[in-house]
Amino acid sequence: MNNFEFRNPTEILFGKGQIEKLADKVHEYGTKVLLVYGGGSIKSFGLYDDVIQRLQGADCQVFELAGVEPNPRLTTVQKGIDLCKQESIDLVLAVGGGSVVDAAKGVAVGAKYDGDVWDFYDRKAVAEAALPLGVILTLAATGSEMNRGSVVTHWEKQEKRGAGTTFPAFSILDPTNTFSVPEDQTVYGMVDMMSHVFEQYFSHTENIPLQSRYAESILKTVIDNAPVVLEQPKNYEARANIMYCGTMALNGQLAQGVETDWASHGIEHAVSAIYDIPHAGGLAIIFPNWMKYVYKENIDRFIRFATEVWGVDPSGQSDEEVALAGIQATREFFNKIGAPVRLADYDIDDQHIEDMAQKATHFGPIGSFKKLEKEDVAEILRMSL
Amino acid sequence: MNNFEFRNPTEILFGKGQIEKLADKVHEYGTKVLLVYGGGSIKSFGLYDDVIQRLQGADCQVFELAGVEPNPRLTTVQKGIDLCKQESIDLVLAVGGGSVVDAAKGVAVGAKYDGDVWDFYDRKAVAEAALPLGVILTLAATGSEMNRGSVVTHWEKQEKRGAGTTFPAFSILDPTNTFSVPEDQTVYGMVDMMSHVFEQYFSHTENIPLQSRYAESILKTVIDNAPVVLEQPKNYEARANIMYCGTMALNGQLAQGVETDWASHGIEHAVSAIYDIPHAGGLAIIFPNWMKYVYKENIDRFIRFATEVWGVDPSGQSDEEVALAGIQATREFFNKIGAPVRLADYDIDDQHIEDMAQKATHFGPIGSFKKLEKEDVAEILRMSL
Repeated sequence: MNNFEFRNPTEILFGKGQIEKLADKVHEYGTKVLLVYGGGSIKSFGLYDDVIQRLQGADCQVFELAGVEPNPRLTTVQKGIDLCKQESIDLVLAVGGGSVVDAAKGVAVGAKYDGDVWDFYDRKAVAEAALPLGVILTLAATGSEMNRGSVVTHWEKQEKRGAGTTFPAFSILDPTNTFSVPEDQTVYGMVDMMSHVFEQYFSHTENIPLQSRYAESILKTVIDNAPVVLEQPKNYEARANIMYCGTMALNGQLAQGVETDWASHGIEHAVSAIYDIPHAGGLAIIFPNWMKYVYKENIDRFIRFATEVWGVDPSGQSDEEVALAGIQATREFFNKIGAPVRLADYDIDDQHIEDMAQKATHFGPIGSFKKLEKEDVAEILRMSL
Repeated sequence: MNNFEFRNPTEILFGKGQIEKLADKVHEYGTKVLLVYGGGSIKSFGLYDDVIQRLQGADCQVFELAGVEPNPRLTTVQKGIDLCKQESIDLVLAVGGGSVVDAAKGVAVGAKYDGDVWDFYDRKAVAEAALPLGVILTLAATGSEMNRGSVVTHWEKQEKRGAGTTFPAFSILDPTNTFSVPEDQTVYGMVDMMSHVFEQYFSHTENIPLQSRYAESILKTVIDNAPVVLEQPKNYEARANIMYCGTMALNGQLAQGVETDWASHGIEHAVSAIYDIPHAGGLAIIFPNWMKYVYKENIDRFIRFATEVWGVDPSGQSDEEVALAGIQATREFFNKIGAPVRLADYDIDDQHIEDMAQKATHFGPIGSFKKLEKEDVAEILRMSL
């Protein structure tokens, strides 16, 4: 186990009806609230009205940043920052999925920064102060509700970048708010959280038995519950398990003492910076190909993955066969739940492969399980066509 | 899954050499430090000198509360509170195991309270303010390094009580600081953390797949690593795994959305309030008997426990037999690693059974898996003789 430092101060309010605590929570920080949300789905199922009524009933003044994109854009974040500064906002309240939360994080740190907020994403500055941030999550996926990561796209530069920004002060996770999430988004969410686990599971760090078991626990729980939420979108218990897994998959815990590898995320960011495809759609395509490209670096890890997570029976099979069976099971699972399997599913051909590989390795080689140079990334992208 | 609220702001600094960050951490809060420690074992392996040198080298003024007992006493806590008030202490620094940390927590909240600190333990008041608390852990056991619980004994009243007090601001967990922990203390620590898991695992709450897998993950990791730390006390990786398990077992996470049952702890507290035996020694005796007394309340949970944690093969056995085999495996494991198995091992006879049962149920029936009245507790104690 490696040395590690860990601190995660986010307060989680989990379960049906937790929104009742919203006004009290907001009042801990003030009364001027910037409500950040996306394309308006929160209006269709009544959450928007509920939030507005609760805030106004508690004498809050509500400002709005609406229309946050699925891959949130820097220009949108900048609009929110301007509003915060102009109106002396006390608290940023994100109501939505990971993109909305990520944008709200950019707003929260940008509002307390004199320079250009892109500096944080461009690794030119480190966020040291932020407006308090509240979250009402409506999509189980990114884990952004309990970490300090934020991913924003600079559309003009075609660059999608992640930065450490600020932890939400509180996050309300009510599984009923995910009942109306469409099937494709539900699938993407599950792919996203599984990918987060992969990125912390495929590691060369030795002696991480508890961390490994935790990772496998999340994967098995998602695998068990995925068919249930797809067949019964209003099954509270299954939605609760998936929501819980999404948060636990990326709240820092799985990475405790473990060397992680975010190469696949990096590759996907390069793809969706150019093609604006759903993040997790890209991950579902790239991850199995990344696995196939790297598994020989530590075949024991992939054997464990195959047997523990997918129940592959190793008897009578070579190590190689067992490892590949686990990768194949992953691909088949993604396929079975309706995720895309190749870039062609998004009409992406080999035209921009060099460009994407270049973007993914902008800061140098990526990954630790296997260090990927530009040419490696290009090869994984070609395998994904 | 039940609704839950969760927040744990403690910063963990895990691994060899993390003490190098001590002075910086302390300086975040001030320079007047109350060092709290136990019987002096920290002097024998050099930790005391190291801490003092680091603090004095960073221009800290160090006051001391030494001699905290294994079952820390209210009188000791009170001494620390007086010192804090008298000397305007900025930070309480606990260097030791769970007892030292628990006492330091009592000191930290008592220093910011005008009334009698026992009020918190006697459920007459709720701690609302505290001095900041730092921890340097030397014993993997109680999890107190990452939660707000504190257990203190009022010796005159023969009452041992737990209270929610304050989270450590930071905890330094260096496995090398546990290398010299004697064998019996090492065993007690592992029994203690396993007991914490049991208390959050044996539950009637349905649909807690991830929580259950996490609990089983900790148990399996302790079971795997226990023989290694006992045979090779200076095996860093095994000590690290055990230390990590101890913290994860009681940082609030396993209880997320789960109805827990602390009856066995309550019974043990009543025993050690009268006999001053090691807490975990009492737990090793009481837990298997509690299991035997309650397993029929939810036999499926005990079947899962037997098969998942202990690898009991259910084929050809009745549910009853499988459940009992898991309980028997628990008892044998405790026995194998050298924990006591009956109260007679501490020369405890039936003389005070009524009294202990009375104390354990002082606030009413205890437990949720099976609600235990005074008579039930007495029966479990008789089974433990």
